[in-house]
Formats: sequence, structure tokens, C-alpha cells
Amino acid sequence: VSDLISELQTIVGDGHVLTAADLRAGYETDWTGRWQGESVAVVRPADTGEVSAVLRACASRRVAVVTQGGNTGLVGGATPAGPPPAIVLSMRRLDSIGDADPALMQLPCGAGVTLARLQQAAADAGLQAGLDLAARDSATVGGLAACNAGGLQAIRYGTARRRIAGLEAVLADGGVVSKMSGLAKDNAGYDLASLLIGSEGTLAVITRVLWSMVPRFADRALALVAVDSAAAAVAGARALLPRLPSLELLELIDEPSLRISLEYLAGSPPVPITPAWLLVGCASTGDAQEELAAALVESGLDERTVVAVDATRRQRLLSIRESVTEAIASAGVPHKLDVGVPLATLESFLDELPAVVGAAAPGARTFVYGHLGDGNLHVNLLGPAPDDESADEAVLELAARSGGTITAEHGVGRHKPQYLSLVRSDAEIAAMRAIKRALDPEGVLNPGVILA
Amino acid sequence: VSDLISELQTIVGDGHVLTAADLRAGYETDWTGRWQGESVAVVRPADTGEVSAVLRACASRRVAVVTQGGNTGLVGGATPAGPPPAIVLSMRRLDSIGDADPALMQLPCGAGVTLARLQQAAADAGLQAGLDLAARDSATVGGLAACNAGGLQAIRYGTARRRIAGLEAVLADGGVVSKMSGLAKDNAGYDLASLLIGSEGTLAVITRVLWSMVPRFADRALALVAVDSAAAAVAGARALLPRLPSLELLELIDEPSLRISLEYLAGSPPVPITPAWLLVGCASTGDAQEELAAALVESGLDERTVVAVDATRRQRLLSIRESVTEAIASAGVPHKLDVGVPLATLESFLDELPAVVGAAAPGARTFVYGHLGDGNLHVNLLGPAPDDESADEAVLELAARSGGTITAEHGVGRHKPQYLSLVRSDAEIAAMRAIKRALDPEGVLNPGVILA
Repeated sequence: VSDLISELQTIVGDGHVLTAADLRAGYETDWTGRWQGESVAVVRPADTGEVSAVLRACASRRVAVVTQGGNTGLVGGATPAGPPPAIVLSMRRLDSIGDADPALMQLPCGAGVTLARLQQAAADAGLQAGLDLAARDSATVGGLAACNAGGLQAIRYGTARRRIAGLEAVLADGGVVSKMSGLAKDNAGYDLASLLIGSEGTLAVITRVLWSMVPRFADRALALVAVDSAAAAVAGARALLPRLPSLELLELIDEPSLRISLEYLAGSPPVPITPAWLLVGCASTGDAQEELAAALVESGLDERTVVAVDATRRQRLLSIRESVTEAIASAGVPHKLDVGVPLATLESFLDELPAVVGAAAPGARTFVYGHLGDGNLHVNLLGPAPDDESADEAVLELAARSGGTITAEHGVGRHKPQYLSLVRSDAEIAAMRAIKRALDPEGVLNPGVILA
Repeated sequence: VSDLISELQTIVGDGHVLTAADLRAGYETDWTGRWQGESVAVVRPADTGEVSAVLRACASRRVAVVTQGGNTGLVGGATPAGPPPAIVLSMRRLDSIGDADPALMQLPCGAGVTLARLQQAAADAGLQAGLDLAARDSATVGGLAACNAGGLQAIRYGTARRRIAGLEAVLADGGVVSKMSGLAKDNAGYDLASLLIGSEGTLAVITRVLWSMVPRFADRALALVAVDSAAAAVAGARALLPRLPSLELLELIDEPSLRISLEYLAGSPPVPITPAWLLVGCASTGDAQEELAAALVESGLDERTVVAVDATRRQRLLSIRESVTEAIASAGVPHKLDVGVPLATLESFLDELPAVVGAAAPGARTFVYGHLGDGNLHVNLLGPAPDDESADEAVLELAARSGGTITAEHGVGRHKPQYLSLVRSDAEIAAMRAIKRALDPEGVLNPGVILA
């Protein structure tokens, strides 16, 4: 190991190989505190060439490489987990932003650029990033790509996969793959970039991303709609989706989530308390308010609706949704699940959920909120001990039985390899293992993540 | 082999294993006549289960499987090519179309459904397919997916990759991978579907596709714009792209292409003959004519412009572009190249092209037309003998030197494995080979395609 440390120091410079425990600490524990391990060093390369040299140095010694961006993940995918010896490869120094191409709406970013900086650079170009999530100040572009991040605007602009026009990455053997031409059409061989997106640092280390921005729509509107049941929420989503091309946000907030958020904000209910709310937002080149109002009327959702008529009230409605996570965290350590369930079966999923949780963890408090338009709901549980997975497993099984997925956006990480077979066949998992072996035969890239 | 034939007959039924030379002939030669080979049988399965059984039967005997949809490819990717013994796996019987989901705009299609039928089914649902190309009556959904098809509308709706919400496929060992839930967000492991799109039948046989439709825009407008130079064409494209969100078509037609098309159509020039034309189309929920006119004025492209004011004239302008291919074919056997070149270097590519072709094939006639907005130009050459690749190679080298690609939409097939190293690094090609070996260790799926 001391031989490795000295080689790493030669590659990235002494000051960027952190071996002291106190300097490593912030990199070895995730922000939730649930996932932690130990590394022999935290290595902070400056560019793709250094990443390549670091990977060769580690692969030849079979030392694991745990790649980390902003360390905002929720499934332990960016922190070490015990043996074998590992380094944490911090990508934050690869933080340069290139020139925006306004015609193609593309922006080259180093993997270490934060989402907030990307959003600002897009705004400076008169555009927007087309992706937003709460960890924007820390989460990095490389992490968004490696985890195929979703967030609030995926209903309109897709997940990170759709926003990535190209990328550069380093394979386990130090070889560099690069697709940064910006060409929307390029069929010269397998699309390695597509495979690497969402591979959570297990197949390659993403070093640069060509981000595909979206137009900035000046006019925005937002409404909070009270509905009587899960069925009504799903029916409302199905009615709105085809009627509102300018839809940018379609969130569900269930009654427990609304109540805890309002308590946390010390606010009062903007509408009578009912079993569920839809938060519907649109962004348009035309009259967003008018488009939203018309779609709500056509969808039969115009009663018991609060429409935000100005930016202040819009922000207030948004804060009810955005504060749900913090409000729950202030009441305990939640189990956080990000299931995806097709709209076709979402009603029965929501109907069955209380009994399923109740059987696995009697007395647990269940909160359901999130990205209804994508079928991506956050199920948060308060009550079960942090290491008691019985209710988690029951919820994931219900999602799988409903034709859904165990992770819509957080990824598999170290938390869910044990549940992968709920939603992926033996043939699929065998194919994933074969690909992993093909690209990382020594198994040095993020071992234990995705495939246990 | 006779043992294999009888097993195949048991799997798909006697009538669907074609062994007579005259019955096989239409499957063993591509439509251009350039690519042909011999198979031991043409096998026509009815469903995914039969495809799986056929693949197991072939893999165990190391008999190659050449998958074929509508046999409309241009690079020999769907016809056999001599040893080893091969079957042609015709997917046309998997031609069922499921129910459209109007809220999610998704339509499940068997791999053998033609693009024309998909387009009709989308229209029946009040939507459109979001992909169009000349071979629409024969090309199949499975082929569109396997080759990541592009075509005329990719500037707005992306290539097939963006239009595919999920797929089902059979691996070389008969294992089935399936992602047909329709969930836009699903991060449970590597995205095998993304890897299989564009893999040209070398990693799996695609059996079903969940197609993602797009809204139907009622109002359309089209204009033909004369420009003085390649530089002006590229500048025009860069000016229009950010100004016209309703842009659906942005094609280039150079002077030789326009002339030969007008001769073929026995028509007269709609505008004065100049070095290049842009064909600009938009489709809108608003007033397409007005949006197009405003963008042309803002982009300085409103002089020497013919705007089609009704559907008849729109069709006439479109036919000038659509007839270029046939017009060239009527004058000889063209070498057809589908390069992609970034807009940033497209001007110099176009400037250098005549000298590059002239040096490699003196006297060759060069036609340049195609999807300017994507940087995807069709370079057609008349003059060189069919097997004289010297000019082809020179053009592909120029595209590569320009930071572009050797194939924007046709794919690699059997034609271009020899050129892959012009645009993919050794590390990238090694990664592709490793993936191929991982998923098809016996090398039975479309050997010789993509990787020679």
C-alpha cells in the first residue's frame, strides 16, 4: 500500500492524496450517516489523464476504486465498505465548464461541476439545465450521469440519460472512452456512453459530460389540487398528461406528508385536508396560467384547487412539497424508498401499501410523495429501527408485484443488490455480471455496488 | 445441419423453415443487391418463446443467426455473408400491435411491425410516431431499434433510441431480457435496453419494442431557402435551431442534388440555382406559418425563399428532397455514405470535400444532401466502380478528421468494420469486443457485423 500511496502522490501531487484519518473522514461517510467504511487514501485527480493513471495504479494492485462526486447519494454507492483495500476517488477538482453552444444547447462540464453551477451556466446562456433536485449545491454532473439522476423535472425533460449528449470516461484498465462530438446521430458501434450512464461507478469513471440544455420558458404556473383518493390522483395524472404539453411538474403529496410539512413550516392548510394532493406546474412560451387552468378544467380538477397567481405564492406551494423530506427527517431517521410503479397499477399499489407496511412493521408511519407523473413515488417510513429492513422489503416486493421497480432514481448502490432479483430476471442479472466482468475483470471499480 | 433443420421445424413449424433456394433468395440478398450470402435456412418464428428456442438450437451448434426485419438496411447487416453456416432469422411474423396508452403516449409493437403500420397506429391514437424514413413500408420496428434509425424528423424527436421506452430481446443463450413496464425512471441495474439499441443484431435479437409516440401537431409549414455557400447553409442552421422550437425538418440539398432531382421529376427550379438549399419545416400547436416566417426573418434567411402555402405545394417541395435518392440511383450505382459532422466543422468539411473526392476518384460526381440540423449528411458518389472503396475511405477519413463519425444513421454493418478505428479508439473497440464476448461467447449473433 505504501508503494501505491507514493505512486498516487506522483500522479496527482502530494497534497491531493489524503491519508490522515481526519481528512478522509468526510469522504468515508455518506451524508445520511448510514453508509461508512474506510479507505487507504482519498485521491483528488485534476484531469482525465490523472484519473487514468490512478486507475492503472489501483487495478494493477487490485485496490478498489470508489468514485465520489458530491457525496449526496442515498444508497451507499459512493463510500467505501470494508475489504478489499480501497481508495476514494474524489472527482470534485474536475470542475471546469466549457463554452456553451447556443444552437445545439450543449455545455461541456467536468465531472466535478455541481448541478447548481451547471444550472447557473445554463441560465447565463439563456437556457436551463432541464434537471433539478434538492442536492443541487453538492451533487455533481459526474454523479448525475453515473446514477442517471431524476428529480423534479424529469416528467418534461427526462432523466440525466436524456440530458447527456455525450461523455468521456476512464475504464478500469485506464483506457479512455470519449463521445464528446455533440453529434445527435452517431451509430459507429455500441453506444458505450449509454451503458455507462446509470452504472454507478462500477464500469468506468466518468470524467466529462456534454450536457444537453433545454429552452428557458419565461412563463410559469403552479396549482395545488386536492383529490379524494389514490384513484382520483392517478386518474388526474392520466387526464393531465396528454392535455398539458407545457407540464413541468406533477407531484403527489399524501395526507401524512402534507400534514408533517405544514407542521414543519408552521403553516396552515391552503385547502381542506383530503387524502391526497397533486402539485401541477407548467412552463410555457405562451400563457402558462391559461394553459394550466384550461387543462385542469378539462381534466375535472378545477374544484378545490389553489392556483398560485404570483411568484411568491408559487414559492409557498413549492415549499410545501420541498419541505416534506426535511420535515420527515426532523421527526426521526426514515427508511427512504424510491419505488417506480406504472400508472396502470399505481392505484392498487397505493391501496395495498398501508396493509403491507402494517403487517411488516406495525405502528410505522408511512409517507408517500413524489413524482407521480413518472410513477416514481417516495415511500418514507418512520418507526422501524435503522437496520430493520422488513418493511423496506415488503414495500419493494409490492412495487415489484405491481410491475414496478425497486429504484426509480436513487440507484441500487450497496443497499439494494439483495433486492435486484425482485425486478430483474436471472438472465438479466447474468448479462449484467458478464458485462461487469468484461469491462472490469479484476473487479476494482466500486465492488459491491449494483451486483453483490 | 439436417439435425438442426428438424429441430427448427419442431420449434416454428415446418412451413416456417424455408430451405429451398428460391424461397431463401429474397432473404439472402439485400435490396441494393450489393450484399448477399447463403443460409442453411430462413426461419420465421412467431413469438419470443420461439426466438429463444431457435437461438438455443443454433448456439449449441455454433450456427450463426442473422436477424432480419424488413431487409431495408444499407450496410449488409441483415444478410448472411458466407461461412460459418448461418440461418436468417426473419422477424416479420412478430407483427402484433398492442393497445396504445394515450396518457403515456406508449405503444407496444412486435419487432416485425412495419414503420408504416406503427405510424398508422399512432395516428389512430391521435398522435404520431415521431420517426419517419423512406423505407417506412418495409422497415420494421425491430430493425429501427437494432440500428438506432434516424431519418427526417430526428432533429425534433431524436433517433429511435429516444423513441424507445422499453424493449424485450433474446440473448445468444436464449435468455430473455425485458423492460416493457413503460416506466420512464428505472435505475435497477445496467440499462441493457440502451446497450442493445444500435447493436445491429450482434448482442441480442429484439422481439418487442415499447414505442414512445409524440403529440400530433396540426399546423405545418415548409420553406425552401436558397443560400450562397456551405458557410451560409451552416450559419443558417445555427441561426434557426435556437429560434424555432417547432422545427421538425432542417435539410440540406446541394446544387447537384437539386439539379438531378428536378431533372428526374421533370420540374423547374422553384428558386434561382445557387450552391445550396435549406429545406426548413415546422409543426406547431400554434401558427406554424407565422413561426417559420418570423424565424426566417430573424435568421436573415427570408430572401430567395419559397414558402409552401398549402399542402399541395408543401408536398411538391418535399418531393424535391425525397426524390434525390431515386434520381441518383436512376443515374448509376451510387456509393452511399451517411457521415455525421459537427456543425462547428461542417463548413470546412463541405469546402474540402470536392478536392478529397477528386483526388481519390477523379471525375466522380458528388451529391451532398440530408439532415443538416443533426450534422448528418448523405454523401453519394457516382462514378467509382461498386467495389472501389478509395473515394469512400477518403470521405470517411475527412469526416473523422472533422471530428465527425463514419455513420450517423445507417450503422456499421458488414461495410464499415474496417473503418471503425477512424472514429473509435483502441480502448473503445476493445471495450466493444469485450462486451460482445461477454454476451455472445460463441459469436453466433450476426458475426462480422460492427466488429470484423
